[in-house]
This record gives sequence, structure tokens and C-alpha cells, in this order.
Amino acid sequence: MEKIKITKSETSKSKPTTDQLEFGRVFTDHMFIMDYSTEKGWHDPRIIPYQPLTLDPASIIFHYGQTVFEGLKAYLTPDEKVKLFRPEKNMKRLNRSNDRLCIPAIDETLALEAITTLVGLDKDWVPSAEGTSLYIRPFVIATEPYLGVAPSQNYQFIIILSPVGAYYKEGINPVKIAVENKFVRAVSGGTGEAKTAGNYASSLKAQELVADKGYAQVLWLDGVEKKYVEEVGSMNVFFKIDGEVITPALNGSILEGVTRSSVIDLLKHWNYPVSERRISMEEVFEAAKNGKLEEAFGSGTAAVISPIGELSWHGKNIEVNGGRTGKVAKQLYTTLTGIQTGKQADPFNWTINIE
Amino acid sequence: MEKIKITKSETSKSKPTTDQLEFGRVFTDHMFIMDYSTEKGWHDPRIIPYQPLTLDPASIIFHYGQTVFEGLKAYLTPDEKVKLFRPEKNMKRLNRSNDRLCIPAIDETLALEAITTLVGLDKDWVPSAEGTSLYIRPFVIATEPYLGVAPSQNYQFIIILSPVGAYYKEGINPVKIAVENKFVRAVSGGTGEAKTAGNYASSLKAQELVADKGYAQVLWLDGVEKKYVEEVGSMNVFFKIDGEVITPALNGSILEGVTRSSVIDLLKHWNYPVSERRISMEEVFEAAKNGKLEEAFGSGTAAVISPIGELSWHGKNIEVNGGRTGKVAKQLYTTLTGIQTGKQADPFNWTINIE
Repeated sequence: MEKIKITKSETSKSKPTTDQLEFGRVFTDHMFIMDYSTEKGWHDPRIIPYQPLTLDPASIIFHYGQTVFEGLKAYLTPDEKVKLFRPEKNMKRLNRSNDRLCIPAIDETLALEAITTLVGLDKDWVPSAEGTSLYIRPFVIATEPYLGVAPSQNYQFIIILSPVGAYYKEGINPVKIAVENKFVRAVSGGTGEAKTAGNYASSLKAQELVADKGYAQVLWLDGVEKKYVEEVGSMNVFFKIDGEVITPALNGSILEGVTRSSVIDLLKHWNYPVSERRISMEEVFEAAKNGKLEEAFGSGTAAVISPIGELSWHGKNIEVNGGRTGKVAKQLYTTLTGIQTGKQADPFNWTINIE
Repeated sequence: MEKIKITKSETSKSKPTTDQLEFGRVFTDHMFIMDYSTEKGWHDPRIIPYQPLTLDPASIIFHYGQTVFEGLKAYLTPDEKVKLFRPEKNMKRLNRSNDRLCIPAIDETLALEAITTLVGLDKDWVPSAEGTSLYIRPFVIATEPYLGVAPSQNYQFIIILSPVGAYYKEGINPVKIAVENKFVRAVSGGTGEAKTAGNYASSLKAQELVADKGYAQVLWLDGVEKKYVEEVGSMNVFFKIDGEVITPALNGSILEGVTRSSVIDLLKHWNYPVSERRISMEEVFEAAKNGKLEEAFGSGTAAVISPIGELSWHGKNIEVNGGRTGKVAKQLYTTLTGIQTGKQADPFNWTINIE
């Protein structure tokens, strides 16, 4: 494994105060970068001062979107240690995404060392207030200047860091979600289970249209029958119906969320009945009508757990749990953030400490 | 309309000889660029020496693929004039793509003036040999440094030029096409009818897998039933069955090709029966079995007309017209390239001359 070269920044940028923290607007002093060429493979891993990228305008990333990314967070513990939450799962998913996008695999051990080294160097940027963290964004871009539609011969793997506050302005308060009946995020055989730019580009329009009506996110249905629940915005989604917690099964078009997997593990640990299966909006609607829809919430790295207070579907409004955060959502949020920040025991060994 | 400022390059790069011409590997001396901000709108249109872009690594283009592009060509006529082919259709489609991707509309007159000014300045780069042209690539990228999933507040509209030879090494000779039964390019409600990066990123894997087996491209089926023909690789597709020319109707997931539209107009002009309708692979297969599949070909700016000599579908090989280029495909290719290069009359006023 090639050693990571470090060039330190000569100055340090000013850090945002807690009340200035937004999501993904401010970046730390350093970044990681590594190059790929067909001749050399992945090479020259290095940490350099945060700086612009210089790319030929014909680079494949600008035209054919050959790119993947990951998202994870570093958390400050009460005794000022820095923790990562299940980062090895992100590195595995990064390579699954790479495979779907014809991008050469990255050594997961090196990628994780890149993250820990970079976060260690910018440790002072990890914010300490409740609900804040240092967001870590690894991504790969295709850099060959070529306009033919073909996998690139050159790539860059880059990691940037951003101190962040809550993803939704609502925080752990319930959000309103509109079920999307026209636009489709992804379909089986497409790129829905990869973390790649096109899935997000595709979602902007639907999101913009519902935002005008006061909804925080859309709930995506399957692209074939537009009946079955897929995801919420950029999160996985869970429903608690008559005591059972249900989340859509991984079907090829749904992203395999690290938080989703952790939620399932925690619920099983707590002996809740959990199902990964197909669930239709009709079923959710019927459950609500019969008073059996007890909770609904999204899960994701950015928002952790985001309770859903209201769903709009074909002109019908489905109120969930009287518009309040449910018990399971609250318990999951408290436990997950507790484990992530070292305020609770970590029975699953999900976190690692950064030296 | 803001005036385009021109900064000329002090040197001129060496131009490729005819036999060195590939597709999209070499770029001319200049590029066009224009900025967008929410405060100023689109502003500062300028032509500058071809140079790298300098972008913050958090720019939305690198993460969420908010980007669109176009492709058209400039052709040299026998009397050394430079022509464009229906560029106003590309500009209209650019704005339809912009709308789908939540990118602010671009003044089509200004965009066209940018193209004609840039091509005029780099006129010496338009190659003259048969089958060559100057490929024009306008594209828009989201440049705001922000990791939230939301439309960007900043963009750049860029135009680059590349002298090109034939897109396929086969030229006008028939290509082998594999019908894709697993991967899906696009689905109605997605971004299939927009010219945006994600559609192409999504196609790389299928393309790579069939290339290993000797196929030039895949034929995409609909994402819902995987029964109906959509496109071929990055081209629209036509079948001639029992005297009738059939192309899939624009259904929301198919790109509305400028060449597609021109092919339909020419066929009607020649009094061929033409249908834009749904066509299943079963129908194509049955027609072939009954000796009624007379031709199949793709249409697109890059390849103009690309005859299909063989289709592979579920392990069955469908030979088209004995693997030879059909009469209609040849007539279309000759007429389209004739009009484009000013070697034939232009009864539809499809071309414009660049001063």
C-alpha cells in the first residue's frame, strides 16, 4: 500500500460558529486526492491544502457523469475523541458503486486510511455541539478528456470534509413528504443502488415542485408500476404498522443505506418485528385509515433519523402519529447518535476511534 | 443581448491530419464560456483560449450531476464554406434538457451566436475529408460548492469544438447490436428524454459487457416490461418491415434526436410509409423470421446513419439484410451528409452558413 504524502496548509481558514453551521457549505483546510491511469493504476495518494480542481473541459465527468460518491461522518465524543461510524460499509459500497459505473476498484484499506489521516489532520474542525458533526465526502470523477461514450482511462479519488449542522431545518421534528406519482428516481437495471450523480440529478425536478407546496422531500415509488415504496428523497424509509416495522427490500433500485442497515440491526436487537419486503402506498394508506400506521421515518447519514409527520398521496393527506415524532424513531435517533458520539455504549462495535 | 467578448489565443495548436482524426480526442484553439448566478442571471459571454476549468471540489457537478449537453457538427462545403445543420433544434432541446434538470434557460439566439462566432474563429479546424466534420459540444455544469441535494445557484455554459472522423470504426458499414435484457437506460418519469450525463453514465456497464462479445452497441428496451424498443446506444433506431419504416414513438424516455426528426422528414418526402409507434422486439424477431425485416439502422449526430447488420436477442441472432447496408439507410446517409456538406440541394432549409 502506497504511503499517503502530506502537504500541510500554511494557514487555517476561520471555522464557523455552531449557529453558522449548515449542511455542506464550508470545507476544512485539507483534502485527499489520488490519481488513476490505466498504466499506473491508482497512485500518488496525497493530502494537500483544500483547493480547486483543474480539469480539461472535455473531461468525461462533465459530459457523461461517470462518477460515484460516499457520505459518512466523524463525531466528537464528550472526551474529545473523534469517532467514525461503520466506515468500512461505506468503502464496500463505494466499490459496489464503482463496479456499476465501470470505475476501477479502490483499495478499501487505503481509502479508510485516507479518511482517518485526513480527519485526524483536520480534527479541530469536528464541531462539538449536539447534532453537529464533520461530514466526509469521498468521490471519484472521470478525468480523461474524451467525448466518446466509454469508460474513462483516468480518474481522481478525492475526499473533502465539511463541518455540518442538521440536514433538515426541522431537525428531529417531523417533515411533510409528498408521494411522487410522475417522476421516477430509478428502476431495476438502472443505477438506483449505486451512489452516483445521475440518481440525484434526476431527483431535483420532483423535489423542486413539491418544495413549492411546503413538502421537505418526495417519497419515490417504483418506476414500473408506481405502486411500491422505494425511498424518501435521499433516505431509506421505514413504516411501523400494527407493531411491525417495514422497510422496502433491496430490489436493485434502492440504495443500501448504512443507517438503514443499522436501524434494522437495532430494531432486531430490541426485539421489534422487522420486515424487509415490498410495501405499496395502498397498504400504507389502508393502515393509516384503520389506525394502524403508527410511525413513518427516513434514515440516512445526513439526517440520521427523520420522522415523517404527514404524507400526501394522490390528493389525500395521511397524518402519521398525529404529526408527532414516534417512540421508535426517537429511540433510534437517540441510540444511533449516542453510539456515534460515544455517549452510549457501542455493543455492535460500529465505531472506530481516530488517533 | 450581451456582446460576446473575444480573447484570441496567441498560438495555434497543431491540427491532426485526416488519418489521425478520431472522435472527440482533439480540441481547437478556443472555447466559449458564460457564467450564471442567481443575482446576475446568465452573464459575461466570452471566447477565450481553450483551457482547463478551475472548480471547487464541492461543485454540484461533481456530486449530483446537474448538467446537460448538446452535440452538433459544422461541415466544410466543397467551396470552403462552413455549414451548421439545424442548430436551432439543438438549442431548443438544450433548454428542454435544462428545464428537466432545473437549470435556468439560456437565450437560444445568444447560444447560436456563440456557436457561429466560435466556429467562425476556429474555421481552419473544420476538416475537409469525406465523413469528417467539426463536432460542437455545448454543455452546462452546476458550479456552486454545496453538498445539499438542491439545484445549484451557479452554472457555466461552455462550448468546445473537436475535429472528428467517423464515430464508429465501421463507418457506414453495418454494426452488430446486442439487445439489452438486464440493464435499463431510462424509464418514463426519469431523465431519458433529456441530454444529461446520468443517462450515459448508466449505459457504460451494459456497453462494456457486450463490447467484450464483439457488439458495437446495445439496443435498449423499455424499463417497465423490457419488451419494447427504445434506442440503440446513443442513437435513435429505425426498422424497415414489409415496406414500412418504424421508429419508436417519443414516450418520455427516448431522446428526441435531430437526425431522427430529419430522417422522418426525408422518408415522408420520399413517400415511404413511416410510423412513430411502439415496437416490440418480438415484432422485430417475427418480421425477421418471416423475411420481412428489410433494414435496421441507427440515427444520430455523431454517426449520422449507422446500419445494423445483426441483432442478438435472448441468445437468438437476427441477421438484417444479409448483414449488408440497406438501400434506405444508404440513401439517407448520402442525402443527409450531402445536405450537411452542401454537396446536395437543401430543399428544407436545414443548413445555415457561417460567415
